[in-house]
Amino acid sequence: MSASPPSPAPKNHLSEQMKPLSEATQKAVFQVLQYQFYPKGSIVLTPGKIGECLYFVEKGLMRSYYFEEEDEREPREITAWIVAEGGVAMATESFYRQIPSAEYLEVLEDSTVFTLSREDFLELQRRYADFARFVLQFTEQYLLIYDARTQLLRMRSPLNRYLAFDRQYPFLRGRLSQSILASYLNMSYYQISRIRTQIARGTR
Amino acid sequence: MSASPPSPAPKNHLSEQMKPLSEATQKAVFQVLQYQFYPKGSIVLTPGKIGECLYFVEKGLMRSYYFEEEDEREPREITAWIVAEGGVAMATESFYRQIPSAEYLEVLEDSTVFTLSREDFLELQRRYADFARFVLQFTEQYLLIYDARTQLLRMRSPLNRYLAFDRQYPFLRGRLSQSILASYLNMSYYQISRIRTQIARGTR
Repeated sequence: MSASPPSPAPKNHLSEQMKPLSEATQKAVFQVLQYQFYPKGSIVLTPGKIGECLYFVEKGLMRSYYFEEEDEREPREITAWIVAEGGVAMATESFYRQIPSAEYLEVLEDSTVFTLSREDFLELQRRYADFARFVLQFTEQYLLIYDARTQLLRMRSPLNRYLAFDRQYPFLRGRLSQSILASYLNMSYYQISRIRTQIARGTR
Repeated sequence: MSASPPSPAPKNHLSEQMKPLSEATQKAVFQVLQYQFYPKGSIVLTPGKIGECLYFVEKGLMRSYYFEEEDEREPREITAWIVAEGGVAMATESFYRQIPSAEYLEVLEDSTVFTLSREDFLELQRRYADFARFVLQFTEQYLLIYDARTQLLRMRSPLNRYLAFDRQYPFLRGRLSQSILASYLNMSYYQISRIRTQIARGTR
């Protein structure tokens, strides 16, 4: 979104993505979308609730996270997903299986999003064949994003995970706290601090 | 597949999955599917080639793996996926993006599979609306499998990864070599040996 004025928010990302759809379909979709503003720090879904919405992020940043209680020590916070403008946030398993979420969905920057309820999402697919095709493409895109996420998580070296993330998401530079980034990259706060110091010193 | 006779192979899994489709669609799909037998040890895709097929596994076991060269030491073999009967094997990124594969697809047990070319896969979606819906459901299923895979990979404790895998895939017990399982669970051969010894001794 770079240098665009903050208000009125341009409805660009989703409109662009839906351009291949017929005018009738686009109109039907925008009729049921809710355009919403969430201030930084909002929690739009908590564990135990069922994820009933997709969040198409127009501007801002969201993440999903949960606490893993692997052992007797303090539960560890894990960031599962980070979604910026142009992406779609959801509690994947909860949304598709309609079971209680294990995750929080949190707004990390003041954000404007289009929300689409699951009910409307399914109804639009039934009524508009081109929307159903759009959903398939979108789901395939997500499969590839997941594929890249598993590749990153399989890297043994914390430094390599850090560098791979930086290559994949250059537009997130400087937008994440060190602790959130560490919890996304499956490393400790101490490890990420050390890596950043090494990079700053040019020793890596 | 348990106690079923080895031959003629029952064409059960895919037929079951396609039952909701119209007879005409099912017929069109089975006309273009190739029913193939691959002996244990076959490599059906190598790095550098483009993944042109989906492999619907009727009986047997496949995996995808690659070598990660993270540092100056020996490249580490990583098992990305393990797919048994009822599942679909593919080189995800290569198949969807039509770029050279980074992975090997290997047959781990004598396997019978239906292969479907990407061309036929796309053509069937264009011609049969119910097949397009079937593909969307199948892709959503895969998203959930990927979601579970990322959850497993984010677990810090090797023991917990081992136990979570065992819970998710009880039907794979005893079918994977220790080194392949270790490479799937992102741990060393030494770590998995120790875990198995602990479990056998009942100290875990």
